[in-house]
Amino acid sequence: MVRSNPQRRAALVDAAIEVLAREGARGLTFRAVDTEAGVPAGTASNYFANRDELLTQTGARVYERLVPDEETIARQRTAAPDRETYARLMHELVGRVSAFRSGYLALLELRLESTRRPELRKILTDRVRADLDANIAYHLESGLPGDTTSVELLYLALNWLIVEQLTLPDVLSEAERERLVRAAVERIVVG
Amino acid sequence: MVRSNPQRRAALVDAAIEVLAREGARGLTFRAVDTEAGVPAGTASNYFANRDELLTQTGARVYERLVPDEETIARQRTAAPDRETYARLMHELVGRVSAFRSGYLALLELRLESTRRPELRKILTDRVRADLDANIAYHLESGLPGDTTSVELLYLALNWLIVEQLTLPDVLSEAERERLVRAAVERIVVG
Repeated sequence: MVRSNPQRRAALVDAAIEVLAREGARGLTFRAVDTEAGVPAGTASNYFANRDELLTQTGARVYERLVPDEETIARQRTAAPDRETYARLMHELVGRVSAFRSGYLALLELRLESTRRPELRKILTDRVRADLDANIAYHLESGLPGDTTSVELLYLALNWLIVEQLTLPDVLSEAERERLVRAAVERIVVG
Repeated sequence: MVRSNPQRRAALVDAAIEVLAREGARGLTFRAVDTEAGVPAGTASNYFANRDELLTQTGARVYERLVPDEETIARQRTAAPDRETYARLMHELVGRVSAFRSGYLALLELRLESTRRPELRKILTDRVRADLDANIAYHLESGLPGDTTSVELLYLALNWLIVEQLTLPDVLSEAERERLVRAAVERIVVG
C-alpha cells in the first residue's frame, strides 16, 4: 500500500515545508503539496487524515531535519568546554538553522496558524518545550559555562536574530549579526 | 470626498490589523477589510491604490499605536537612571506590546509576507531599522546604564519572548517570562 511508504510520506512532508514557507499557512492544501512533490493529485490525502495531521507532521519534520549530524555532535563533545567553544557552537547553530530557510519560515507560519488551531498549538507547545528542555539538559551535561538561564536567554535572542535574518535581512548586516552572537554569549553566559 | 477622511482611513487600517492577525496575510483582501470595518463593500478600494499600499500602511499603523502615551514617557524621563528602572521599563514594554496582540501578530504576518514582496520588505526594513535606531538614541540620551549592544540584545531577546507569549503561551509560564525579562536586563545591561 502506497500510504505506508515512509519515503513517500517524508517527501510529501518536505513538500509541505516548501509550500508553507512560500505560500503561507492558507496556501497549504493537499493539492499544493501534491504539485510541489510532483506526485499525482490525491496522493497527499491518502497519507494524512486531515490538514491538522499534515501541519503537525510538517512541524515535527522541521525539527528532525535541524538535528545536527553525528560528526558535528562528536566534534562538539570533544571541544574544550569554555566560552570560546560556546560562541562557536552558537554561530554554528544560527548558521544551521538559517540555512534551512524554508524550514524556519514554515515553523513561523505554523506558530501563527496555531493561534487559530488549539490542537496544533498544543502539539507545537510540547515540541518547542521539549526542544528547549533538551537544550538545557545537553548544556548542563556538556560542562560548558553558564546555567539554565543562559540557555533560555540565548534561545530568545538567537531566535529573533534568525527571524531578522530570514524576513528582513537588511535590518542588521551580516557583520552586525555576527557581532551580536558573540556579544550575546559574552554577556549572557556567566560563571 | 470620502477617501480623504483620515478617521475613516485609520478605521480601515485598524480593521486590516485585525484581519491580518486573524486570517493571515492571504486573508487580507479589500473586501475582508470592508466587512471588518463595517463599511459598504468597495470602501477600502477607494482609500488604497493597491494591496501593497494597504499592507504598508497597516505596518506603519501598528508602530504608531505602540508609541507610549505622554504620561508614560514623562514618567520614564524622571525615573532614576539605574538598572532597576531599566528592568521596569522593559517589563512595561513587553506588557504594552503583547497587550496589542493583534498588532504584533499582524507585524509577524507582514514580515512573512515581505519574504514574497520586495517592495514591502524594503519599507518594513526601513521602519524596523528606524525603530531600533530610535531606541538606541533614546537610550543613550536617557542616562540609563548599558550601551548600544545592550539595546540590540534586549531587542532580540524580548521580541522572541513576545512571539512565544503570543503564539505558544504555555511554553513559558508568566512567572518564567517575568524572570527572563529581569535576567535579560541583569546580564545584558553592563556598565
